[in-house]
Amino acid sequence: MFKAVDKGLIDKHNSSLISELNHDFEYLSKKFQTQNISIEEIKNKLKNFQVAVPTWGVGTGGTRFARFPGIGEPQNIYEKIEDCAVINDLVGITQKVSPHFPWDNVSDFKELKEFADDFNIGFDVVNSNTFQDQGDQLSFKHGSLTNADKAVREKAIKINIDAIEAGITLESKGLTVWVGDGGNFPGQISFSKSLERYIDSMKNIYTKLPNDWRVYLEHKPYEPAFYSTVISDWGTSYICAKELGEKALCLVDLGHHLPNTNIEMIVSRLIDLKKLGGFHFNDSKFGDDDLDAGSINPYELFLIFNELTEAQEAGKLTNVAYMIDQSHNVTDPIESLILSANEIATSYAKSLLVDQNLLKESQDNNDAVHCMQILKSAFNTDVSSLVAMARYENSNAIDPISVYRSLNYKNNKSKVRASAQGSTSGIV
Amino acid sequence: MFKAVDKGLIDKHNSSLISELNHDFEYLSKKFQTQNISIEEIKNKLKNFQVAVPTWGVGTGGTRFARFPGIGEPQNIYEKIEDCAVINDLVGITQKVSPHFPWDNVSDFKELKEFADDFNIGFDVVNSNTFQDQGDQLSFKHGSLTNADKAVREKAIKINIDAIEAGITLESKGLTVWVGDGGNFPGQISFSKSLERYIDSMKNIYTKLPNDWRVYLEHKPYEPAFYSTVISDWGTSYICAKELGEKALCLVDLGHHLPNTNIEMIVSRLIDLKKLGGFHFNDSKFGDDDLDAGSINPYELFLIFNELTEAQEAGKLTNVAYMIDQSHNVTDPIESLILSANEIATSYAKSLLVDQNLLKESQDNNDAVHCMQILKSAFNTDVSSLVAMARYENSNAIDPISVYRSLNYKNNKSKVRASAQGSTSGIV
Amino acid sequence: MFKAVDKGLIDKHNSSLISELNHDFEYLSKKFQTQNISIEEIKNKLKNFQVAVPTWGVGTGGTRFARFPGIGEPQNIYEKIEDCAVINDLVGITQKVSPHFPWDNVSDFKELKEFADDFNIGFDVVNSNTFQDQGDQLSFKHGSLTNADKAVREKAIKINIDAIEAGITLESKGLTVWVGDGGNFPGQISFSKSLERYIDSMKNIYTKLPNDWRVYLEHKPYEPAFYSTVISDWGTSYICAKELGEKALCLVDLGHHLPNTNIEMIVSRLIDLKKLGGFHFNDSKFGDDDLDAGSINPYELFLIFNELTEAQEAGKLTNVAYMIDQSHNVTDPIESLILSANEIATSYAKSLLVDQNLLKESQDNNDAVHCMQILKSAFNTDVSSLVAMARYENSNAIDPISVYRSLNYKNNKSKVRASAQGSTSGIV
Amino acid sequence: MFKAVDKGLIDKHNSSLISELNHDFEYLSKKFQTQNISIEEIKNKLKNFQVAVPTWGVGTGGTRFARFPGIGEPQNIYEKIEDCAVINDLVGITQKVSPHFPWDNVSDFKELKEFADDFNIGFDVVNSNTFQDQGDQLSFKHGSLTNADKAVREKAIKINIDAIEAGITLESKGLTVWVGDGGNFPGQISFSKSLERYIDSMKNIYTKLPNDWRVYLEHKPYEPAFYSTVISDWGTSYICAKELGEKALCLVDLGHHLPNTNIEMIVSRLIDLKKLGGFHFNDSKFGDDDLDAGSINPYELFLIFNELTEAQEAGKLTNVAYMIDQSHNVTDPIESLILSANEIATSYAKSLLVDQNLLKESQDNNDAVHCMQILKSAFNTDVSSLVAMARYENSNAIDPISVYRSLNYKNNKSKVRASAQGSTSGIV
Repeated sequence: MFKAVDKGLIDKHNSSLISELNHDFEYLSKKFQTQNISIEEIKNKLKNFQVAVPTWGVGTGGTRFARFPGIGEPQNIYEKIEDCAVINDLVGITQKVSPHFPWDNVSDFKELKEFADDFNIGFDVVNSNTFQDQGDQLSFKHGSLTNADKAVREKAIKINIDAIEAGITLESKGLTVWVGDGGNFPGQISFSKSLERYIDSMKNIYTKLPNDWRVYLEHKPYEPAFYSTVISDWGTSYICAKELGEKALCLVDLGHHLPNTNIEMIVSRLIDLKKLGGFHFNDSKFGDDDLDAGSINPYELFLIFNELTEAQEAGKLTNVAYMIDQSHNVTDPIESLILSANEIATSYAKSLLVDQNLLKESQDNNDAVHCMQILKSAFNTDVSSLVAMARYENSNAIDPISVYRSLNYKNNKSKVRASAQGSTSGIV
Repeated sequence: MFKAVDKGLIDKHNSSLISELNHDFEYLSKKFQTQNISIEEIKNKLKNFQVAVPTWGVGTGGTRFARFPGIGEPQNIYEKIEDCAVINDLVGITQKVSPHFPWDNVSDFKELKEFADDFNIGFDVVNSNTFQDQGDQLSFKHGSLTNADKAVREKAIKINIDAIEAGITLESKGLTVWVGDGGNFPGQISFSKSLERYIDSMKNIYTKLPNDWRVYLEHKPYEPAFYSTVISDWGTSYICAKELGEKALCLVDLGHHLPNTNIEMIVSRLIDLKKLGGFHFNDSKFGDDDLDAGSINPYELFLIFNELTEAQEAGKLTNVAYMIDQSHNVTDPIESLILSANEIATSYAKSLLVDQNLLKESQDNNDAVHCMQILKSAFNTDVSSLVAMARYENSNAIDPISVYRSLNYKNNKSKVRASAQGSTSGIV
Repeated sequence: MFKAVDKGLIDKHNSSLISELNHDFEYLSKKFQTQNISIEEIKNKLKNFQVAVPTWGVGTGGTRFARFPGIGEPQNIYEKIEDCAVINDLVGITQKVSPHFPWDNVSDFKELKEFADDFNIGFDVVNSNTFQDQGDQLSFKHGSLTNADKAVREKAIKINIDAIEAGITLESKGLTVWVGDGGNFPGQISFSKSLERYIDSMKNIYTKLPNDWRVYLEHKPYEPAFYSTVISDWGTSYICAKELGEKALCLVDLGHHLPNTNIEMIVSRLIDLKKLGGFHFNDSKFGDDDLDAGSINPYELFLIFNELTEAQEAGKLTNVAYMIDQSHNVTDPIESLILSANEIATSYAKSLLVDQNLLKESQDNNDAVHCMQILKSAFNTDVSSLVAMARYENSNAIDPISVYRSLNYKNNKSKVRASAQGSTSGIV
Repeated sequence: MFKAVDKGLIDKHNSSLISELNHDFEYLSKKFQTQNISIEEIKNKLKNFQVAVPTWGVGTGGTRFARFPGIGEPQNIYEKIEDCAVINDLVGITQKVSPHFPWDNVSDFKELKEFADDFNIGFDVVNSNTFQDQGDQLSFKHGSLTNADKAVREKAIKINIDAIEAGITLESKGLTVWVGDGGNFPGQISFSKSLERYIDSMKNIYTKLPNDWRVYLEHKPYEPAFYSTVISDWGTSYICAKELGEKALCLVDLGHHLPNTNIEMIVSRLIDLKKLGGFHFNDSKFGDDDLDAGSINPYELFLIFNELTEAQEAGKLTNVAYMIDQSHNVTDPIESLILSANEIATSYAKSLLVDQNLLKESQDNNDAVHCMQILKSAFNTDVSSLVAMARYENSNAIDPISVYRSLNYKNNKSKVRASAQGSTSGIV
């Protein structure tokens, strides 16, 4: 086992910051004491918090118009794991990566597992790609798991089953299924028959799930289909998960909602229905879905964590798969992923400050002003020293971006990694 | 039994228009023959089509800013029924009215039933109002069926049970429940507990439903609650209907969706789940929900009917409650309701032109262009002569607006009806 | 001059909180020192910051469905000023109220001015109401300043001129004009002619503006008109302000934008065009526009202030009229206005932490990650002790909500104020 | 000069359809007579109507996820012109193509002009591409005309000037400028400085415009930039066009608006400001912008043409550049473009049925119901025989899709055209 980032360098940076951090942490600690909040308990939760990083997230993403890759881009799954290890060495809460198949295909998954082990990187949920053609005669142009042609559906099913098999070797415990299937025009697809085919295909995949696995159904209102999408909303996702069985759960991608959607309420609904399986964290301002988590509406992210924490404290929630799903078009993906992981941990930390009993009491008293104050007071608390201290105690960087920038990492990598060819478009 | 509109007047108008109508109808009839469409069959379906009119729809509606009542406004349920009878005498497809309680409360519902019978007006689904206070100590300010206070919930339950009882006398067969319950601010209500209370309250109401009744659950994303609404989307509506039992169904109000929602797909989902109960027809351009049906996006209305007709022809749909739910702020409500009923019948008629088998075939061939053409060709057909002929053969008016305007109805009513006092705001 | 809130009571509360406040302030002060930020300078800016409160904001608002008034509601402009004085005594940054005519009409404006003076309350921008009928024959049902009927337009012009005259007596320096004029249906109004009439009417009003006055044009995409609104967006507002002259400026209401609008960019555009006149602060999640400022998306509020502060520091901005414009439907309006004023001051304070030169430098370096960090770091800073200290030094309450609740104010007022009659709907 | 589609084939198809067409046209003709509408006048307008086709529209488009090219795809500008000629031979109203540079770069534009002349294809407005890198050191990753780096801006300016020069040879008379410049994150770009740079860059381009040319400024709210776009709305577009001078006009792309935008009102505003330059026709349901014109909301397309026709009849509009701008991801682009051209002509035809004087009169009478009826009656008229007759008389196909399908065109082309390599993503 070795480190992607030299431990000594992190220590050096940390040693120059620890004094100020101690001061800030102490201040916060005393503040919490007066509010009967145990900062140690929260810190421990933060030290054990984990959010997975997607392999495709460490490559520069693009739009349909263009992709502008940076220097030193990772060109394959091995280089991607290197980059993920850098992130995890700095932040410590991204120990697992989520691969995408067949994008991340290799001939020898056992070897890949060992490679990742060396970087102390594990594998989270695996993802299947049936939204792009894989080079043979059967095209996904008109759908994959819902295609009118049975042979195409079987091909899509097989890709998912292959992903499960790869995942077993990688010691993953879940499969996320997202299909872009749908129609661009009224009449193009039968809403009813395409859903029927989806469920039928998924049942085939479901039977191949190991007992300790879960399958996560991801919904999205549109894109790449622009008039109708088969799994478009949480309602459809839920009825499919229900139909499939206990191992099927719903996954909430923060960017996959119509304008103005109250996402935190959807989270609550799925918790009550015992079907909340996981998250794809990101943010968006318009109809897009891949900006850095918390970069546009951090209060919404906090409100989502408030629901999760409330449910966790009430014993209604056990195992939720957290993953970042972003496309980094204008930043160094490593930096965006560091910031995003931190933002997510920050939201989680703030949610732990909410006195849920007091909130319930104020809710029952219809004291909307007090309810607002309780949430806002938690949200407005500056927990940066708390989150940094959790990193520090986990042997990670107090200021991960600074350490990373001092590495000159991508510049160095650009000497040894093959360069991405020219400017293209699309995601990677 | 007597007529609100003199039959002779209608006949006179019709006699001046029938020759042109015959000409247009004949043209269409021949056109359909070449397409193997039986115009008689469609005409018969149109002659039997019914959409209910809401009693509150015949009074001038308003916004929170102002209400500008017209002259001759109906001041009570009896005068409202008079107005509804005018509409039905002219269009013939609005034989039933949908009352709202306690707005339409009377001391003697049997007498009301007889009054309406005399106008050949029946009673459709009854509606309960628990979004306004009813004058006693228990306020619905902080919710009704979901209120934290049990006494308030019981009051709201009682209003619904009273509505059922009134409805039984009126020979209605259903209850529509819409609650405005929700919160204006993050934290204000518990998403989970308020839904739990809703279901609990509804179970109480459900037990009082006669065996041949249905209860329709109406969802809405926001307004009057501006941050979260308990029954906000079709997913929540569905899980509640499922929980309640077979007599509970979902109602789709066309204006109750987030921006860009594909409503026709929701309709398909609910059909497949055997939970589509009824519609509130209207249209909207922004976040509002009460413009005249088909006035903003007539193609969407057609696409919804295309789903209904497809399901009907496939034997998947039996009994759907159609109702208009609009607020007429700037028009004479009678004229808007005439136009809207006609627009709805027109959309239905056009959907009957779609060759569903051909459409399915093109869908299975992934021939999106042909699918589009099939729907567009039906939508672009001018069926006005067909819809008018159905009215004519039903003894209603070929040109209902013209007949209505010749009546000088509201002006005459303004002499005998009490005048609405000044300018206020809100709905009526 | 007397105080609405007993100064001794505020002092008593403050004395129990000052020690903790000093501790927190000191901590922040030291933190800022290391960042070369002068906390004193920011505190002074906060002490001089002012945001006006609307008279209509202290009454409980409602939706078109219902209004649920609280106890002790103010019934006229005098009682409203009492309530505003309570707010200002507690927060100190709401020294002025913005009246609405003819809602706040009195027979003697001089007397009103003296009454307000006694409470140390001044008058901010005056507002005209031409979206409700005023009781005579000429109705605003089909528009006011843009009505097709010249007599109606002249009536609407007169209401504005009367408002200016009242404002002169009240020592206001501006008039805000918002019209709800528009259409509910395609074709109903001529877009072109209605805008022409608006400009023509406004020119009439403009000629009556005193030299040291400004007129603020407020735009809104919809409601009460539901298909088209004459002054619907900043583009239309700008061309009208340009046409009218130097004293005409644009007013930005945070809730008056289509879904997903980047409001902070509009603010920047209007600054560059030298046409940014003022703000109506509030928040919204859906299509509504009257929730408490910062209650839904506090980061957006911060980003808006970041534009304002950047422009102020660059000498591009002098005099902007800040006002709260909210409808308090479920809270005690006094409490909501206290929270909102605090939220606005907080956003302003955080914007003052941004190192604009560093931001510019990072922008020019295309260092998006650093730009994000600069803004997020300012936003995440807990400035509550700084804002509270500004209040404290201004002789206002460290914890205004607590002091207010200890007053039992509305309960006491309910003994002496006439009670609002029953449950109605609409705004007040 | 030769034909892409054999004239004899078109004649053969037409001869089998002309009898039914004559019958339908005669029916419509008589109907119009009773309404005092001259069908000949409208037909002549339709015969002279033109809408340009974009060269990039004839290749299969894609999303960022995938592109699924069809068979026989055009691989260069010459093959694209062949395809455009097929479309125009069938529909006759798409005589010009709109090229995109440097996508459509050739070494010899004179030769290209002659090639196109042979197909009777002319060149409409030219477009510049500064949203993708062109292979040298200066990247547009962080903007083109608004880039902080002057050298990059100059490169972007040069691309535009080169496009003008190519356009001069091609006898184009205009340049459309769309930039994707903007930011993904708050703070990333200075709203003010980026607009300043845009105007500055555009002034450079403007000076190179021939006297009889126009430059069209295209706005878009987002994508590829996901938080802020420099030219985001019509307001910004207008102030830039105003600043540049008389030859600068605004271009309205139907898909480039925030949810719920009333586009027809923007059209009216730009007409009144004498800055409406042209259109990019397409349709969209969500945040996308490239579906076939009229496929989602045909009534909106009609309402836009109603504004144009009203202005044309009032002498307020002279020369508007109409272009289709779509991405055909799931259909044969040739078929979609045929349908779209027809849809646009249909909307134009329907708008010519509106009695603008009667509409004005009803507007002035506040008769919203009659206004609605006037527009709806025009919209509901089936003008397919009228539009087909205009095609027929122009020697084009009565049923262009049928003729096209009988050609087996793409299959034939697939034998001779190089095949597109594999499945990629992005637009072409």
